[in-house]
Amino acid sequence: MNILILHGVNLNMFGRRNPAYYGTATLDDINTALQNLARELDLRVVTFQSNHEGEMVERIQRAMDEDIQAVVINAGAWTHYSHAIADALDMLEVPVVEVHISHVHAREAFRHESVLSRVCAGSVEGFGVDSYLLGLRAAAGLASSRLLQNTVD
Amino acid sequence: MNILILHGVNLNMFGRRNPAYYGTATLDDINTALQNLARELDLRVVTFQSNHEGEMVERIQRAMDEDIQAVVINAGAWTHYSHAIADALDMLEVPVVEVHISHVHAREAFRHESVLSRVCAGSVEGFGVDSYLLGLRAAAGLASSRLLQNTVD
Amino acid sequence: MNILILHGVNLNMFGRRNPAYYGTATLDDINTALQNLARELDLRVVTFQSNHEGEMVERIQRAMDEDIQAVVINAGAWTHYSHAIADALDMLEVPVVEVHISHVHAREAFRHESVLSRVCAGSVEGFGVDSYLLGLRAAAGLASSRLLQNTVD
Amino acid sequence: MNILILHGVNLNMFGRRNPAYYGTATLDDINTALQNLARELDLRVVTFQSNHEGEMVERIQRAMDEDIQAVVINAGAWTHYSHAIADALDMLEVPVVEVHISHVHAREAFRHESVLSRVCAGSVEGFGVDSYLLGLRAAAGLASSRLLQNTVD
Amino acid sequence: MNILILHGVNLNMFGRRNPAYYGTATLDDINTALQNLARELDLRVVTFQSNHEGEMVERIQRAMDEDIQAVVINAGAWTHYSHAIADALDMLEVPVVEVHISHVHAREAFRHESVLSRVCAGSVEGFGVDSYLLGLRAAAGLASSRLLQNTVD
Amino acid sequence: MNILILHGVNLNMFGRRNPAYYGTATLDDINTALQNLARELDLRVVTFQSNHEGEMVERIQRAMDEDIQAVVINAGAWTHYSHAIADALDMLEVPVVEVHISHVHAREAFRHESVLSRVCAGSVEGFGVDSYLLGLRAAAGLASSRLLQNTVD
Amino acid sequence: MNILILHGVNLNMFGRRNPAYYGTATLDDINTALQNLARELDLRVVTFQSNHEGEMVERIQRAMDEDIQAVVINAGAWTHYSHAIADALDMLEVPVVEVHISHVHAREAFRHESVLSRVCAGSVEGFGVDSYLLGLRAAAGLASSRLLQNTVD
Amino acid sequence: MNILILHGVNLNMFGRRNPAYYGTATLDDINTALQNLARELDLRVVTFQSNHEGEMVERIQRAMDEDIQAVVINAGAWTHYSHAIADALDMLEVPVVEVHISHVHAREAFRHESVLSRVCAGSVEGFGVDSYLLGLRAAAGLASSRLLQNTVD
Amino acid sequence: MNILILHGVNLNMFGRRNPAYYGTATLDDINTALQNLARELDLRVVTFQSNHEGEMVERIQRAMDEDIQAVVINAGAWTHYSHAIADALDMLEVPVVEVHISHVHAREAFRHESVLSRVCAGSVEGFGVDSYLLGLRAAAGLASSRLLQNTVD
Amino acid sequence: MNILILHGVNLNMFGRRNPAYYGTATLDDINTALQNLARELDLRVVTFQSNHEGEMVERIQRAMDEDIQAVVINAGAWTHYSHAIADALDMLEVPVVEVHISHVHAREAFRHESVLSRVCAGSVEGFGVDSYLLGLRAAAGLASSRLLQNTVD
Amino acid sequence: MNILILHGVNLNMFGRRNPAYYGTATLDDINTALQNLARELDLRVVTFQSNHEGEMVERIQRAMDEDIQAVVINAGAWTHYSHAIADALDMLEVPVVEVHISHVHAREAFRHESVLSRVCAGSVEGFGVDSYLLGLRAAAGLASSRLLQNTVD
Amino acid sequence: MNILILHGVNLNMFGRRNPAYYGTATLDDINTALQNLARELDLRVVTFQSNHEGEMVERIQRAMDEDIQAVVINAGAWTHYSHAIADALDMLEVPVVEVHISHVHAREAFRHESVLSRVCAGSVEGFGVDSYLLGLRAAAGLASSRLLQNTVD
Repeated sequence: MNILILHGVNLNMFGRRNPAYYGTATLDDINTALQNLARELDLRVVTFQSNHEGEMVERIQRAMDEDIQAVVINAGAWTHYSHAIADALDMLEVPVVEVHISHVHAREAFRHESVLSRVCAGSVEGFGVDSYLLGLRAAAGLASSRLLQNTVD
Repeated sequence: MNILILHGVNLNMFGRRNPAYYGTATLDDINTALQNLARELDLRVVTFQSNHEGEMVERIQRAMDEDIQAVVINAGAWTHYSHAIADALDMLEVPVVEVHISHVHAREAFRHESVLSRVCAGSVEGFGVDSYLLGLRAAAGLASSRLLQNTVD
Repeated sequence: MNILILHGVNLNMFGRRNPAYYGTATLDDINTALQNLARELDLRVVTFQSNHEGEMVERIQRAMDEDIQAVVINAGAWTHYSHAIADALDMLEVPVVEVHISHVHAREAFRHESVLSRVCAGSVEGFGVDSYLLGLRAAAGLASSRLLQNTVD
Repeated sequence: MNILILHGVNLNMFGRRNPAYYGTATLDDINTALQNLARELDLRVVTFQSNHEGEMVERIQRAMDEDIQAVVINAGAWTHYSHAIADALDMLEVPVVEVHISHVHAREAFRHESVLSRVCAGSVEGFGVDSYLLGLRAAAGLASSRLLQNTVD
Repeated sequence: MNILILHGVNLNMFGRRNPAYYGTATLDDINTALQNLARELDLRVVTFQSNHEGEMVERIQRAMDEDIQAVVINAGAWTHYSHAIADALDMLEVPVVEVHISHVHAREAFRHESVLSRVCAGSVEGFGVDSYLLGLRAAAGLASSRLLQNTVD
Repeated sequence: MNILILHGVNLNMFGRRNPAYYGTATLDDINTALQNLARELDLRVVTFQSNHEGEMVERIQRAMDEDIQAVVINAGAWTHYSHAIADALDMLEVPVVEVHISHVHAREAFRHESVLSRVCAGSVEGFGVDSYLLGLRAAAGLASSRLLQNTVD
Repeated sequence: MNILILHGVNLNMFGRRNPAYYGTATLDDINTALQNLARELDLRVVTFQSNHEGEMVERIQRAMDEDIQAVVINAGAWTHYSHAIADALDMLEVPVVEVHISHVHAREAFRHESVLSRVCAGSVEGFGVDSYLLGLRAAAGLASSRLLQNTVD
Repeated sequence: MNILILHGVNLNMFGRRNPAYYGTATLDDINTALQNLARELDLRVVTFQSNHEGEMVERIQRAMDEDIQAVVINAGAWTHYSHAIADALDMLEVPVVEVHISHVHAREAFRHESVLSRVCAGSVEGFGVDSYLLGLRAAAGLASSRLLQNTVD
Repeated sequence: MNILILHGVNLNMFGRRNPAYYGTATLDDINTALQNLARELDLRVVTFQSNHEGEMVERIQRAMDEDIQAVVINAGAWTHYSHAIADALDMLEVPVVEVHISHVHAREAFRHESVLSRVCAGSVEGFGVDSYLLGLRAAAGLASSRLLQNTVD
Repeated sequence: MNILILHGVNLNMFGRRNPAYYGTATLDDINTALQNLARELDLRVVTFQSNHEGEMVERIQRAMDEDIQAVVINAGAWTHYSHAIADALDMLEVPVVEVHISHVHAREAFRHESVLSRVCAGSVEGFGVDSYLLGLRAAAGLASSRLLQNTVD
Repeated sequence: MNILILHGVNLNMFGRRNPAYYGTATLDDINTALQNLARELDLRVVTFQSNHEGEMVERIQRAMDEDIQAVVINAGAWTHYSHAIADALDMLEVPVVEVHISHVHAREAFRHESVLSRVCAGSVEGFGVDSYLLGLRAAAGLASSRLLQNTVD
Repeated sequence: MNILILHGVNLNMFGRRNPAYYGTATLDDINTALQNLARELDLRVVTFQSNHEGEMVERIQRAMDEDIQAVVINAGAWTHYSHAIADALDMLEVPVVEVHISHVHAREAFRHESVLSRVCAGSVEGFGVDSYLLGLRAAAGLASSRLLQNTVD
């Protein structure tokens, strides 16, 4: 099973930004932790980061032709306005899991709305790097039941 | 480590209710799955369900005097209006994780608002029974880093 | 045919409360009138009142295992905020009829919204005790056509 | 006792329109059912339908000079914007009952508001043709108690 | 100078309606008072009443081809929703004065908005029959200064 | 009969300000026109202008002890926020008429709301200096009917 | 193929009204242009105009029994409040195309909302008389694919 | 004179909760202080606390049959949503005084609204335990003037 | 201990204004009652009234250089819009108590908002003249604990 | 005559996306259809697609220096938030036509608002690929009348 | 060139108020700094402060007859509600520059709205005393280009 | 001292765009003026423009590792929605000054909100090219006091 991990705008700065909200792990630390958990769960993860909305949209579009069973996305600030990314995710037929390092529903009002939620199966937020790891588990779980279902049907 | 699992109003009916949203697992199935995961993670869980707001409030109040390191709560419909439960949780000094079986931010508008989120550390939603299991992992993670922190300080 | 009549919070006080809105009939008077009409319509009614949301929720849950063909509910002030009761009613597979003694859509603004209406088949409001009697007729009508339909299918 | 039944815009099309919401009865069927119930209740009904707001307003104005004890109205789409019909009804001194075939408070948002409710004694909605029959009973009940009251006073 | 006086929906009922808001003068009384004042001011008034929006719209359209220098309109309940009448008035090149018998900005909220005000030069409200008489004076004043201006230019 | 004319903030600048909205008449011109009309109507007017809210409030308070039968007020920009002037006017037992030179309900949004309207009997707006003259006639009319009424009662 | 063209309130005045928004073509010019295009596209158009909501509703109702494959409607000011016309159009089983001479979404705020859009397949606005011609092409296109589809199925 | 003191949900935890907002006094301390002041004012107080909305409602209902002249209530989080408690208080014929330990109108937005205020005579908030003592004085004052009034009438 | 009592706009009219809301006590009566209570509590009160916002602002500014331990203010209509008075109070370092004669949160909507509450420690409203007396007690209580605290620190 | 056709974000995916809304035609199919219609109308079209807002902005900027008489744009999800594209289009002096494949005003609420409409001459929506073809005709019509006008002037 | 500097309500307290927002400079310090910069720029400044809205309004009115080329105003709390000052400034024909010591658009919500901005050419905020100095430069720049323009025309 | 000047989307078009709002200076003219003022103030400016949000974000990110003491930014249309740029600026530890050529708070409603203001120290708007020059002065002032402060501490 292959899972695509998407990191949105400014997330290449993890570890340099307000530690009160985001902790001290870098993006590499997060990706390494995801690779380790992937090995433990016996699946493969592909990671991607961009600060360009256009690049992110095209990366998602390419996933339509790849052997990918689920997506985990932390879209950063795009979460709150990029209908373009939402539309791109909507074209995928695999489940999408939204993750956030901090608890966005308990912060500033503009962070309460996610324009992505209409195209996501579920969300995990507020647990630091663990949000990614739990999101990966969630994605793997959703993908497994779909695979099972397809086998059965 | 001890973690308190709280199931709110109508959740005793799991497995009998709209399967499109809630699946077929019963509350006993969920609690058993939580106990199994707890053993795997080497911690203990205490579970509680009530359809009475006052009982839920008082169960949370009692937790102030118990050896509990985190709380996982699915408050059901109370999520959207019970400021009383939010105030009770706010008195606890341990992290609280909010879980939902379905993806409430992608359903009817009144389900988008959680009056509990201001007192929760994070949330997991949309993964069926897995929301509970991921929520337990999240709670355990938060509690561990606190314990560690207290040891270090 | 059996029909469950539910009286919500404060409705045990009928006859003692603001007569301009609620008239002088007591809850017993109302129940007696309902029993009389039930006899006339050749059906049975079961009545229940509670001031405790949890009791009301559990009474509705029990109805899932009973031989009941319809529900008539006047939820009192819960009408305006108890999503828990709405969720409980939503689990029933029989039609639910909402009744009000006074015309709530012509009173204070907070009374205009009913969080129950999304789970009710219809409503009767503004006719004093007659709201209940008409609600019983409405419920009987809905239940009859369902029974008929089931026989035919 | 005489009761005026008013059918608003597009309601001459009953039985030809979306059966999921409106059923298969025609306006004639409904009027016949009302006449039958009237005979049973020992009263007289006068029915009127128009697709022209002005005609409806003038029909209501004429009722001021007629021997009519109550009004039952299903104003169709006018319910949501015709303050003119509301003002006309407001001039009558007899009780007005608002009826709807479908449960308007559980449909599209623009159907939730009734500009008529401020001038109506009560409402019945969601029971198909039965809404009319229950509305007639409700109107008769309101008119009777007024008559009684006037006799007593 | 000729001035067109327009009476909207339900205003044929003046003198029969809620006297607290509308007084006891009939529409004929009002028209007579307007004719008397017109004579005093040495001008002619033409009066028109309809309960039909279409008739009112077409009456206003005809005024484009008539020798009319100003319009005084009390649109009744149409004030609050008839954009069609507003559009018709907007085609006229003479000043329009809006009048109301009662003080609509001090009554129910829905009466605060006038969809006509964007096409009116001014308004007079709250003085009973005097609102019409003052409105006629206002219209005459506006028309006079236009005539004067045209003569001068 | 004595009528108090109140001119609010900035209105001492009439004739020097945006002529598109306010014309070229000065405050003295307006007061002279009012005096002339008063003579014609056989009544007396007292005029007062202030740019100080406190002075205006106290002028209105003094009117409680004076032989005054009505008030005409153009409050200028205070119209939109001075609840203090509204409260002062509310203490008077004589009718108050609100006047505006321009048609405030057809200008910028913040000018649509008048915090004075709840305490006024009616309003005249949009007719330049004529708004004052019509307002004086309106006030005289209201005061006369009151006097008449008091004589009759 | 037959297409019904509906012109709403005040549209009989085309060519006499604000040319900045509506141009100089009369309603007859528009109908002639539509007839010419119809000949070119080898179909027939029937045109209808009314200033009476009730007449428009009944014209639409009659279309249910006619051999008509699509409707093009410019409802004028009714666009913004006539739920009655929307309900009538909703009963038709053929596609409805909304057209506007001017670009209503770039004018006053109240013109942004169309209560008709929920029952229309699409819209064309902002191109003067061409809006009608493009709307006719659009309607013909929609109707053709339906016919084709019905033939195939 | 007897005064009923009602403590709502979570208020049994006084002294254990966020001292920045609530101070260190326990509920017993508060009740003792109230008893002391009652003796000083020569009246009797009855105190009651519950975390169960239904119990609180029924306690208030019982007060209808008791010799009680006023009520002081701190409803805790119920303040913001329990229309049921408001309805129960509304049935009492004695004055009700709302008290809050902290200044709720200067805290989070959801605490600004009190659904109880429509049924209360007045409120005291922001003075810690003193809010209760001042509330008791206020209640005693209101009850005294009523008694006096009844004696005089 | 010295406490400054501030009476805002129109409050010099106490005893002459709507007795339903404000009672019959004059401002002198209120000040006398405050002086009496001050003697009883062994403190001094200084009272000040103005109808001029600027005077009130400057009176508050002077308090910065005076030996004053608390402020009690009833700002009258300024409560709802005078950010200037709020800013002036905000400069003081002593506690401010807001009082109202009537229960402003249960009256017209515009009276629900107090622009002063962000700078006040607490409020007392709805008890007639007693609101002042209770407010004085509240202010004295707050000031005492500050004095005590300063002594201890 | 040259017309620029702009396809926004995600529109390179036409034919692969939700066919219920978007049909099965690919972007190449659409461009071919546009080229065919262009030949028929004797004009030239240039087409451009990008998923990068910056590229789209610069493509529009370049059009200022090109021989282009009109623009047709389907901006995809950017329609709802890209003020940057709106500003770029605003710099062009040729007419812009907005097209949409589906009827955006009859879908989710966030799709109702187009931030582009303030800079567009008109719009065509809801007709599948035909929306483009009708949009091209509309653009050609607008451009022709401008050319004519320039020749005449 | 002469520039009028206006300091609004409470600004005489500069240097005594919350230094986190306002710094330690007094109003005299600010005026001295402005005089120094004026000398450097070779122009004259006149400064004025008042806590009385009426005085400020009349100071602005007098400027109409003075040789003044621009105005710099910090209106303090009046910024958020004084339509009277906005109207007075609107009568001046010279440019007005709004300045604020702190960054009002990044503070409490009620400070985000400036009722003055509709009559100001521009604003400078957030730079402490420098806001005044930059505002003076901005005003001088605006006035210079006007002078130049007038010379050229 | 080094100051980074950032020009956002479409600002490379200065001098070609609507001169009523933006004047005739090109971006090069503006940068030259900034360089000249920088020399006069004895500091260095680095300028950067992009139409790609991603490039702008990364340019800001790079500034974290550069010897830069302040930032001046005119983000163009991004001002109103690019939370991504706001988040990037939020990571910098130097003061940021927001500038606008025109007075955005006095233009269309969507331009009133700046999502950048929460991360900026202050703003300058409405003075054409001078906005940049004043913004540079403001930034230099803020940076100087920080340097001073750091030296002192």
